[in-house]
Amino acid sequence: VHSITNYVVMNSTANVLLAAGAAPVMAHAREEMKEMVGLASALVLNIGTLSEHWVESMFAAGGAAGEKGIPIVLDPVGAGATRFRTRTALRLLKDLSITVLRGNASEIRACAGAAGRTRGVDSTADSQEARDVAVELAHKSGIVVAMTGEVDIVTDGRRTVSIRNGHPLMSRVTGTGCASSVLTAAFCGANTDSLAATASSLAFFGLAGERAAPKADGPGTFWPLLLDQCHNMTPEELTEGARVELEPRL
Amino acid sequence: VHSITNYVVMNSTANVLLAAGAAPVMAHAREEMKEMVGLASALVLNIGTLSEHWVESMFAAGGAAGEKGIPIVLDPVGAGATRFRTRTALRLLKDLSITVLRGNASEIRACAGAAGRTRGVDSTADSQEARDVAVELAHKSGIVVAMTGEVDIVTDGRRTVSIRNGHPLMSRVTGTGCASSVLTAAFCGANTDSLAATASSLAFFGLAGERAAPKADGPGTFWPLLLDQCHNMTPEELTEGARVELEPRL
Amino acid sequence: VHSITNYVVMNSTANVLLAAGAAPVMAHAREEMKEMVGLASALVLNIGTLSEHWVESMFAAGGAAGEKGIPIVLDPVGAGATRFRTRTALRLLKDLSITVLRGNASEIRACAGAAGRTRGVDSTADSQEARDVAVELAHKSGIVVAMTGEVDIVTDGRRTVSIRNGHPLMSRVTGTGCASSVLTAAFCGANTDSLAATASSLAFFGLAGERAAPKADGPGTFWPLLLDQCHNMTPEELTEGARVELEPRL
Repeated sequence: VHSITNYVVMNSTANVLLAAGAAPVMAHAREEMKEMVGLASALVLNIGTLSEHWVESMFAAGGAAGEKGIPIVLDPVGAGATRFRTRTALRLLKDLSITVLRGNASEIRACAGAAGRTRGVDSTADSQEARDVAVELAHKSGIVVAMTGEVDIVTDGRRTVSIRNGHPLMSRVTGTGCASSVLTAAFCGANTDSLAATASSLAFFGLAGERAAPKADGPGTFWPLLLDQCHNMTPEELTEGARVELEPRL
Repeated sequence: VHSITNYVVMNSTANVLLAAGAAPVMAHAREEMKEMVGLASALVLNIGTLSEHWVESMFAAGGAAGEKGIPIVLDPVGAGATRFRTRTALRLLKDLSITVLRGNASEIRACAGAAGRTRGVDSTADSQEARDVAVELAHKSGIVVAMTGEVDIVTDGRRTVSIRNGHPLMSRVTGTGCASSVLTAAFCGANTDSLAATASSLAFFGLAGERAAPKADGPGTFWPLLLDQCHNMTPEELTEGARVELEPRL
Repeated sequence: VHSITNYVVMNSTANVLLAAGAAPVMAHAREEMKEMVGLASALVLNIGTLSEHWVESMFAAGGAAGEKGIPIVLDPVGAGATRFRTRTALRLLKDLSITVLRGNASEIRACAGAAGRTRGVDSTADSQEARDVAVELAHKSGIVVAMTGEVDIVTDGRRTVSIRNGHPLMSRVTGTGCASSVLTAAFCGANTDSLAATASSLAFFGLAGERAAPKADGPGTFWPLLLDQCHNMTPEELTEGARVELEPRL
């Protein structure tokens, strides 16, 4: 999984991929984008600590990924918080063959052009209205939209799946959203059904959080325990613990 | 708390803020500084891994924070070690409405224009002479000066407070100084008395260290336990454990 | 130890140095390279998340380190994966007075101009043929070559040493290779025999991994325990646990 991501989570997302059995590569130099993407099975674009040079590399990498036909996951961190982020997310969505858009409710709303302002980058707003925005965006764009929050929603505009795994401590550690994006890329890189792969990756990570939390005394000890769970979880445990449901059509 | 900080500690300072109940935002693009600051209650400027572009963003963010009237904490990492850092710290101090300057003795001395060379960025030198430099700098500039070391000193030039919380393991983990700066920003963002807020934040973090240390086998296990303590500490525990004293005038 | 390194491992390599009793400095601004190197006992150049500006700073720092006569460790992360990385590693090797080159088999092969493509940046390929490449590179260049993998090889082209310490969990955490490079720099900064210092640092870190692993439930809890072991290991424990052997000449 090749990631062009923000400085804050580079270490933690690399570790989450390694723990889950994937191989992370972090690189952003314009000069090597095409070759690096050539070695990858999936690409993650995360705009968490954006600057103009990095945006150019995102387009170069995204273009190469599109040509190669590997999945691209876009994490529009903080879209809606500033015009620079919203505009960049919209340009990436428009010009690249994005496979999955993974964000919280405010970020998805911003990507859909819906009103409402992000409070920083960690905002959430689960509601029927937010879900409708996600479904409509997926329907129009052909992109799988994953809106994460207390309940996660994954939709391709026709089918919508809810995932009820996770634990409140996950929101007290930086980069858990970004981690779910890189896991989604790993799962999509290994599976052709992007909706199922995305839902599975969110169930996987949420379940890992559920299993780690009882052993933790707080967010500090929670994070290493969460990585252990990503490393140790068996397919059987995932199947048994996943709380994934196909939502009825409305 | 909006931070423009060094690459080394972005993850750990974001986690310390989350553990303590604050909301971190890390962003440095010139294009979005004004908007990001508009969403924040406090700003941290940390020159730990400086480059020219980032300095421009610091001025843009600092200018916006000054207009908005939110507190700015400057962490002059490595001031005194190189002319580039010393000069940058001095320019930030001169041109922005800095609320709190938080550094070790060498860094504070460099910011005060005092002689003496930093050995790397982790140097400390507690002494009466260093305290006098801090008090004079605060008095002249109207900035609260927090000089951290074995004993922390916080002064506004008239009142000087000492904080005797902390543990030696805190100096064996990278970014604990930077963490105390972002916590100071969080406390100052929520309180109007900057001297009291700064002293409280240092007592809070030092006490968290004291409580974490007995459970740790070394600096590796110490850090997650320290985050847990930041998350779990009650106001009563802080009041009881804080060793804060108003220093007599000399 | 002054490091110009990749964003992913800045925090973890700083912590490994602190745990082992060394003092890390991370800085990359062209303007301060000469002064920063002037304060250091060793320099690490790591090309893990390269860009053109950083390469310039690497040359500036490397030039200053050469003039000062302090050891330089080059970690050619991902050499062989892209032409940009291979070319940069070769330029650094050619133009600077590199003391130790530390990489995995693919990276060392790329630095030797040998054929074979890196799979990402985490590839390994222990074999007699890879060893021969390392020995020949060291012989021709006068640089100590450390090729790490399941068995580590350190060679100056005349003497070759194998180190059989380590644990498989070390490859499930990002930055353990980079960590061994910064430790190598710390050991070389304190010892004049670069071959012995490099072999000792790899034995030290591998042994720390061996000692940490039985207490870990996975790669998440392994990392903090590994730092603890770096902090707590005595010279006697290292002497007793090191599995270092002089390889017979072939």
